[in-house]
Amino acid sequence: MNGDIAPLDPASAEPFYRQIYERFRGAIASGVLKPGDRVPSARALTKELGLARGTIDAAYSLLAAEGYIVARGQAGTIVAPDLKQRAPLASPRPRPDAGAPPSFRPDSILPFQMGLPALDAFPRKIWARLGARCIRAMQPQDMLHPPVSGLPELRAAIAAYLHMSRGIDCAPSQIFVTSGYRHTVQLIAHALLKEGDRVWLEDPGYPPTRELLGHMHIAAVPVPVDGEGVMVEEGIRTAPDARAAVVTPAHQSPLCVTLSLARRLALLDWAAKGGAWIIEDDYDGEYRYISRPLPALKSLDRDGRVLYSGTFSKVLLPGIRLAYLVVPEPQVERFEQIHHAFAGGSPQLTQAIVAAFMAEGHFARHIQRMRKLYAERRAAAKAGLEKVLGPHVRIDTPPGGMHLILRLQGQRSDRELVARMRKQGLYTEALADWNIAGAEGPALLLNFTNIDSRRTAEELARRMLALLRS
Amino acid sequence: MNGDIAPLDPASAEPFYRQIYERFRGAIASGVLKPGDRVPSARALTKELGLARGTIDAAYSLLAAEGYIVARGQAGTIVAPDLKQRAPLASPRPRPDAGAPPSFRPDSILPFQMGLPALDAFPRKIWARLGARCIRAMQPQDMLHPPVSGLPELRAAIAAYLHMSRGIDCAPSQIFVTSGYRHTVQLIAHALLKEGDRVWLEDPGYPPTRELLGHMHIAAVPVPVDGEGVMVEEGIRTAPDARAAVVTPAHQSPLCVTLSLARRLALLDWAAKGGAWIIEDDYDGEYRYISRPLPALKSLDRDGRVLYSGTFSKVLLPGIRLAYLVVPEPQVERFEQIHHAFAGGSPQLTQAIVAAFMAEGHFARHIQRMRKLYAERRAAAKAGLEKVLGPHVRIDTPPGGMHLILRLQGQRSDRELVARMRKQGLYTEALADWNIAGAEGPALLLNFTNIDSRRTAEELARRMLALLRS
Repeated sequence: MNGDIAPLDPASAEPFYRQIYERFRGAIASGVLKPGDRVPSARALTKELGLARGTIDAAYSLLAAEGYIVARGQAGTIVAPDLKQRAPLASPRPRPDAGAPPSFRPDSILPFQMGLPALDAFPRKIWARLGARCIRAMQPQDMLHPPVSGLPELRAAIAAYLHMSRGIDCAPSQIFVTSGYRHTVQLIAHALLKEGDRVWLEDPGYPPTRELLGHMHIAAVPVPVDGEGVMVEEGIRTAPDARAAVVTPAHQSPLCVTLSLARRLALLDWAAKGGAWIIEDDYDGEYRYISRPLPALKSLDRDGRVLYSGTFSKVLLPGIRLAYLVVPEPQVERFEQIHHAFAGGSPQLTQAIVAAFMAEGHFARHIQRMRKLYAERRAAAKAGLEKVLGPHVRIDTPPGGMHLILRLQGQRSDRELVARMRKQGLYTEALADWNIAGAEGPALLLNFTNIDSRRTAEELARRMLALLRS
Repeated sequence: MNGDIAPLDPASAEPFYRQIYERFRGAIASGVLKPGDRVPSARALTKELGLARGTIDAAYSLLAAEGYIVARGQAGTIVAPDLKQRAPLASPRPRPDAGAPPSFRPDSILPFQMGLPALDAFPRKIWARLGARCIRAMQPQDMLHPPVSGLPELRAAIAAYLHMSRGIDCAPSQIFVTSGYRHTVQLIAHALLKEGDRVWLEDPGYPPTRELLGHMHIAAVPVPVDGEGVMVEEGIRTAPDARAAVVTPAHQSPLCVTLSLARRLALLDWAAKGGAWIIEDDYDGEYRYISRPLPALKSLDRDGRVLYSGTFSKVLLPGIRLAYLVVPEPQVERFEQIHHAFAGGSPQLTQAIVAAFMAEGHFARHIQRMRKLYAERRAAAKAGLEKVLGPHVRIDTPPGGMHLILRLQGQRSDRELVARMRKQGLYTEALADWNIAGAEGPALLLNFTNIDSRRTAEELARRMLALLRS
């Protein structure tokens, strides 16, 4: 192409860079330039065409961005060698909405992956209907920065739900919508803690909390867990002056035990006396299969020491990225200030969909259905695993939660076993990875919500068995 | 134009270079000078006008920075050849989609509110169609935690866009999707800064940056701004060892001046030598009405010191809560680690909609349309305000941005005036509130993107006039 390039048309409506771009595209499409062919350097072409270097650069950038040409450093610029196979970047993608809605492929879930709700049981049709409605109804105020603390209708729906379902009495103004648990913890840390502060963490406990606080230079004080939940008296003995405690009273994460009433009261008493904060991480308090869910610790909070953290990740979808925090009334102003400084709010659309889902009763119905489904799936998973794995494991049966704990018999390493299982596509977790100072285990953590039958459990168990035996 | 240039006015409040600059602009706007026409050399004009060479150079720099003229080396300097396509000032404005089901009520927008795009011109129908499609097409993998750094298709679309539109050469893996500018700044601060670090901030500058860094115990060093942008040499004099600088090179926020090439190079040089970071806040770099947008500072970054911050708030909708950060390659791993610890990713749905919007070419078209519309609205707003407010104000005409700056004549307080205007529903901002140590002003900042006609501007101006007179 170099040498025989036709002069550009200065009278054209197309700017020069665009004309050059079209020339190259044409030459490539017609086969005049082939994959791997060298194209003139921008400098040479600049000289040849008598145009500004910037014009040539613009044309080449466009060609590169769309995948037609590739810079090869010293070797110069060439027509992309794999051009035929590759779809150019800017070309329209195949439309997924052509014809019928695409079929649902639950096989893309990794077996046992922790923290996931039953994706096949999610009410996708209702969700899509509400979503389409919310997006069509968009008004100017919906396009603006959403209120940083959350859409008023969503905050009101959450307050009503917490009142009924978790025994928490709070005003919508105490609810702060966040983009997830980590965001909630950050908000609390920025508002109430400072570098160097010490915070009780349950041991074992959810690893991301420790990681996050570590990055914020807040020191974790591990407090052991027994059959009654976190050992409050141990925390008081070790670090009476800690500024906060992160706890999971409904189902301890990951041991699933429930914090006893005596411990709840002791914890509240400690916080009230020392002016410390209790961060109640109620990540799946709804999912209790024996009797009805317990009221939240927050419902006992007479002194305004409890910050209640809830999330839609487990009861709806992790992909929705919505969670919330209930702040004691006297701290609301402080949190508003901090939340405003640090965040710009969650997307209007996702909040509007969840608010509609709650307001129309779908949320309560969905939880009700899932509670029943999870009780069944838990029983089926346990039976299937026990049948195949037999004496290699002992399976705990806690009152609630979304995972099973498989205690390994003998002194083997759960970490090493998990590494081998992941290679086989089995996404278990090692309890050892949830320990801080303690040595609970060895045990595997297995989410059961996506195991749809006892047969599936048995199949998965057979894949595990070979690894357990070796 | 050469030869018949009228004498300049030595009594004018405008300095000579500014008068020359205005002459050329006028000549270009009226068609006396056409795209591609040669303009006199600086030396010839210096001689002809009997002025200092520096004066002519200043005028020509300004014209070049704003894209009116282009130096062509030996071939001399010409009026930018692609000026017509880029800044057409009189075309029919795009119709807001009149057929959308629920009625659209743009009256809920507060007049002059800063930072908002033209809400009536947003392609709501296309958006709703894509949104409904994305939500219907939801698959299990879309329900899971989205990849923390962003959906792959969105990161690829952003990288391609930045390459073409902002001259930035980066891989999708260097793009981190965030939930907004504040989130971007937090991510940078957690990854690269520590408590007690000092950071240059432009003075005047966007107030939330200072507030946010303050909460993170990072000290702001105000650096003044003049006609060439932030005064880099002042920053070096005051705080040579600062760890970072937050700058707005395209259109300084709020003065809208463009950072000169000399300053850009000095800033990059300072950062490279001291190992400091440059945070380029390119919040509305697309909206330049004179010639094509300037390449980003990041495009000149040879030493990997620039963190480029972009956002969809201004080019799409604030309510979408999506922004992005481009990280130098060697820092990618560090940012992945930090981003993972602090965030759970942005919602799958909003990312999928934006990715589809970009992949199908709507994004590029929308920006193109808005650039044209904003140029019209800016001219209409300026004309309407000037007609009614007359000698009470002087209105700057910077090359880009989404707001006007109304310089108040006399020594009155812009803050006090703004307080009274807000009571009347006029949502102006006081330049004084954007000052840190400096005392720019008094002036009002007025977003013009939602002022749909000169008549609207005149009506609003009449409401302002009573307050300006009192």
